[in-house]
Amino acid sequence: MLPDVSDPRKPNPARRSERSRRAVLGAARELVSEVGYAKVSIEAIAARAGVGKQTIYRWWPSKGAVIFDSFLELSEGEGEEGIRLPDTGDLGADLKAVMRATVAEFADPAFEAPIRALNLEIIADPALADAYREKLAGPVDEAKKERLRSAQRAGQLAADADLDLVLEVLYAPLYQRWLHRAGPLTPQYADALVATVLRAFAP
Amino acid sequence: MLPDVSDPRKPNPARRSERSRRAVLGAARELVSEVGYAKVSIEAIAARAGVGKQTIYRWWPSKGAVIFDSFLELSEGEGEEGIRLPDTGDLGADLKAVMRATVAEFADPAFEAPIRALNLEIIADPALADAYREKLAGPVDEAKKERLRSAQRAGQLAADADLDLVLEVLYAPLYQRWLHRAGPLTPQYADALVATVLRAFAP
Repeated sequence: MLPDVSDPRKPNPARRSERSRRAVLGAARELVSEVGYAKVSIEAIAARAGVGKQTIYRWWPSKGAVIFDSFLELSEGEGEEGIRLPDTGDLGADLKAVMRATVAEFADPAFEAPIRALNLEIIADPALADAYREKLAGPVDEAKKERLRSAQRAGQLAADADLDLVLEVLYAPLYQRWLHRAGPLTPQYADALVATVLRAFAP
Repeated sequence: MLPDVSDPRKPNPARRSERSRRAVLGAARELVSEVGYAKVSIEAIAARAGVGKQTIYRWWPSKGAVIFDSFLELSEGEGEEGIRLPDTGDLGADLKAVMRATVAEFADPAFEAPIRALNLEIIADPALADAYREKLAGPVDEAKKERLRSAQRAGQLAADADLDLVLEVLYAPLYQRWLHRAGPLTPQYADALVATVLRAFAP
């Protein structure tokens, strides 16, 4: 009789590897949130994850790469369910719901600290910026555009609106305000951004 | 007869100090443009400026502080003449001229490299973000708002428009696109941003 290689009682190197990988990514996210990107070290991630430093260096070339992957993992979880914006038929109401939730996330210290760390990496590193756009921002933007196209078909948004520009006008002011800590992040602000976009790109 | 302390042939410590300070700030700007923020060292700035490392540490606590001051010096030059936006009476034409010039600056590698370095510092450091807003961004934003108020009086912009929001909608999309290298920086893009703002905040 042939041995059953998938026998769960037997040690399985692939499964052990995957467990270590997830532990490293989880530790990276936790540490960035707790102490900030600058103070996180590969040593600290290894200790928190319960793996050797060499294990991390075997899989990732740098601290920035580990942290980027740790965010990518979060987003891949979303990807499995499919990213989709609410579509109740009322573009204004749907965008307000999404923007209020986004503003609340950026106003939350536990959420914003790792996102700030990731942004610093992306801004400093063109290759990481490309990877970010391809793997993280791109699919999310595509989902948002799907909602905008539905609004165009419903006559709630100009049929010839440049959807990249619509998304920039909707999100970039929030992003810049958050990045520079330049003003309050409130539900009223979310609503004002939605109102601006609806007016600027009305049919 | 009393000695003339302002005799230009005599060594003057205050004048020598000011010359060193300007040499340091000029060297900091040059080096950031040439090799990027991460690779600039206090040693390299001192060597380029022809001063001792201790001279720099006597005046500035950190590399970030030197670089911040080097940008502040540029802006103070502007301040002496007074920052003022063109006002031909045509808001659209004036904003297009300003935004086309801004887009061209961000598309210029020699200009954008030190600005990117400064932005990384500001994003990572809340105290520097405050100083930036107070000393650099604040006065410039005030000058821009003066132009917008003139347009409100001329009936070219809604009288109740939130001018902070108007500036964010005008500049933040360009800022984000540049920061993430997410799209082309062209005169057409500048014009599209102006058209968006004029429509969103029409009277």
